[in-house]
Amino acid sequence: MQREVVRTAAALVIGNELLSGKTQDENLAPLTKTLRGLGVRLCRAVLIEDDLDTIANEVLALHRAYDVVFTSGGVGPTHDDVTIDAVARAFGTEVVIDAAFARLIEEAYGDKCTEAHLRMARVPKGSELITSAEISWPTVRFANVWVMPGVPEIFRMKLTMVRERLTGPVTFYSSSVFTRIEESELKPLLDQVVLSHPEVEVGSYPKWRDPVYKTKITLDATREEAKRAALELFLSLLPAGEPEHIE
Amino acid sequence: MQREVVRTAAALVIGNELLSGKTQDENLAPLTKTLRGLGVRLCRAVLIEDDLDTIANEVLALHRAYDVVFTSGGVGPTHDDVTIDAVARAFGTEVVIDAAFARLIEEAYGDKCTEAHLRMARVPKGSELITSAEISWPTVRFANVWVMPGVPEIFRMKLTMVRERLTGPVTFYSSSVFTRIEESELKPLLDQVVLSHPEVEVGSYPKWRDPVYKTKITLDATREEAKRAALELFLSLLPAGEPEHIE
Repeated sequence: MQREVVRTAAALVIGNELLSGKTQDENLAPLTKTLRGLGVRLCRAVLIEDDLDTIANEVLALHRAYDVVFTSGGVGPTHDDVTIDAVARAFGTEVVIDAAFARLIEEAYGDKCTEAHLRMARVPKGSELITSAEISWPTVRFANVWVMPGVPEIFRMKLTMVRERLTGPVTFYSSSVFTRIEESELKPLLDQVVLSHPEVEVGSYPKWRDPVYKTKITLDATREEAKRAALELFLSLLPAGEPEHIE
Repeated sequence: MQREVVRTAAALVIGNELLSGKTQDENLAPLTKTLRGLGVRLCRAVLIEDDLDTIANEVLALHRAYDVVFTSGGVGPTHDDVTIDAVARAFGTEVVIDAAFARLIEEAYGDKCTEAHLRMARVPKGSELITSAEISWPTVRFANVWVMPGVPEIFRMKLTMVRERLTGPVTFYSSSVFTRIEESELKPLLDQVVLSHPEVEVGSYPKWRDPVYKTKITLDATREEAKRAALELFLSLLPAGEPEHIE
């Protein structure tokens, strides 16, 4: 299958529990890694409460501003699961029962299948239901919005489909240099690298009381040669005995 | 000291590294817990890249919509630290060197003090510099925006000042009920609780393949009595042998 090329992405992480300190989000980290690996730039992530209008407004804003949007959470059978309704509202469409999805649920739950289970077959009218060879349980996509579940294990499973369907236009090349030098002392060196290699993104991350290193410097580019040249310049500027290591 | 009463809060977490999968945010979790403990509702958290205009626009939007805003990250001495400039731009003010802060930095670093260190004394003109008995290193606040550092250990340290200065108008009372029942089967019970106790927020969180429980139900209210009544109703609806436990 030809993968769709997307350049920018946004994530919408939904759930009161994430903002009230009861649960910590676990889905952003695997999503960021997946997108980075594909060469897609995740530009923005927003965490909001389970409120229909708030979700609808945010979905519409992100849909318009980015090539692809991933929502996480609010897709179960209970009263606080309003993401499907919110996506429908965002696009001015209605919620319908997808017959094939409903059959799948009935088959999966058999005699135990209740109305609550069947609520999971509710989708915004006009959605695409994405499945793969390994995963028959569909993922709902409406326009460029992927509606992903909040349960971390299932969210991660569904990233397989993201990798099958999407790709970025570039490859990201990265190096991390770990030094025992304070960030402030590195600044003039970094400024030289930034000035000489404008296409390389230079990051500087101090570590507080770490036994191994004081500052991690990251170099990122979409051309391997550019990244390598910036790395060589930076290493040549470091004093003897540095860096601690490179990754 | 009289604490300022704030009802709603937002967080702005800044840094390319968080969106590119290199680092995982560690500051939202302690912030959510702190605010929850104070009775302040965190309504929204946004993760964005180190881009001056993006940060400035977001700071202004959050400043207008919420009682208090916390930014995290982008306040060090290097080229990618643009939060101070962004906050100044958001409020149409300039960046100035705070003389007292600069003296503190000079004393702290002594002979080793460089121009890069002194960059940390740059603040939006009109900022308040907050210190406490324990923490002499100031935290910059402009209007209702607290500019917090990205380094997790320092971020957590500065939450002491947040607790000293701010409080919410309410107390949150919470219970969590862990059941071995599937979420779909719990739905009709939860609907009864939601209907009978509109002031109680009911959350339902399925756990995937957990040896102990299948669904965690949370009950939250700002009146303890209301939370307790909802809890009692929910427990009375559960079948014999449930719940697994309550927290």
